[in-house]
Amino acid sequence: MTRTLGVVLYPDFELLDNFGPMEMFGNMQGAVEMVTVASESGLVKSAQGTRVHAEHGLDDCPKLDMILVPGGMGTRAAVDDVRLVDWLRRRSNDAEIVMTVCTGSGLLAQTGLLDGRRATTNKAFFTWPETTWPKVNWVREARWVEEGKYWTSSGVSAGIDMALAVIARIAGQEIAELLATGTEYEWHRDAAWDPFARVHNLV
Amino acid sequence: MTRTLGVVLYPDFELLDNFGPMEMFGNMQGAVEMVTVASESGLVKSAQGTRVHAEHGLDDCPKLDMILVPGGMGTRAAVDDVRLVDWLRRRSNDAEIVMTVCTGSGLLAQTGLLDGRRATTNKAFFTWPETTWPKVNWVREARWVEEGKYWTSSGVSAGIDMALAVIARIAGQEIAELLATGTEYEWHRDAAWDPFARVHNLV
Repeated sequence: MTRTLGVVLYPDFELLDNFGPMEMFGNMQGAVEMVTVASESGLVKSAQGTRVHAEHGLDDCPKLDMILVPGGMGTRAAVDDVRLVDWLRRRSNDAEIVMTVCTGSGLLAQTGLLDGRRATTNKAFFTWPETTWPKVNWVREARWVEEGKYWTSSGVSAGIDMALAVIARIAGQEIAELLATGTEYEWHRDAAWDPFARVHNLV
Repeated sequence: MTRTLGVVLYPDFELLDNFGPMEMFGNMQGAVEMVTVASESGLVKSAQGTRVHAEHGLDDCPKLDMILVPGGMGTRAAVDDVRLVDWLRRRSNDAEIVMTVCTGSGLLAQTGLLDGRRATTNKAFFTWPETTWPKVNWVREARWVEEGKYWTSSGVSAGIDMALAVIARIAGQEIAELLATGTEYEWHRDAAWDPFARVHNLV
């Protein structure tokens, strides 16, 4: 079974939030087919300046089994994009797995789907989600949080660890280990590993 | 002083080889200006399928202070691209720092500039560079190797560690630490750290 992963792009998304997980999902020898999606198809400028091609707009995006939502400087504007938030709510309801990296959890929280659920986010900007979406049970110390089909991860590079955990779930531990070794990545397998919560005085 | 970093794109480059280091260099608040360059400007398809925009072709690329060369499935074809190799040789001669990730060191080796110098590469494909460019002193156990202005790193995620070491060199240790913490990345600061050499029976 091939799963389709929709990678969300919006202006000023953080490069590694998407490309870390995409490195892993993209090397599963076709088990996961990745598509990029933005408000409209075409080029989307990242927070670091490089432009990435969105294959689909919101209206012509194929059915998604999995969704990946990045964070970045553009997240604060993205949460006010009603069309994007509505799309994300509908598509998340239909998806098997929804993942966020960094402040991408704010975009998912804006859909209301995280209300009453546990989630985490970037440890340097924790006040924003805690005050903006108080119905979410924000977890201050976690590399990532799995709550039903919703997987939310901490800042930037945490997305790689979460992606490998998702891969272990859908394809088996051995495949995840092979991907980590193949990319010479020291995978943090423990969702509770989070030295950065302490750096930012969250615990 | 702003340095210009030229990030090389070629068909089937490995996503994280470029976007790991770019995440770090791109967050230096303008100290490093990144430009993407390929044979011709326009979209370049990565090994994982996603297409990335090359702002410049080889002939209209601005002066580069730094160069980043990725590896990936496309490297074997890229080493036979005489125009690209000639460009890389000329631009490397003029640059202050030249970095490669993964099998990208093969592309740099093809220029001849690594002859007689120490370098490393992906630990899963070590036979290819050792037999193809025997004049290079290939280092089997190293996260990255610094040899004058040439910095070569191991597979995929090793580029992130190397990039932070380069940033420590040009901007100071404090900036590198801030970038690692800001991206919640556990930086391997030791160039000799390399568990993957043992995984692949290289030592």
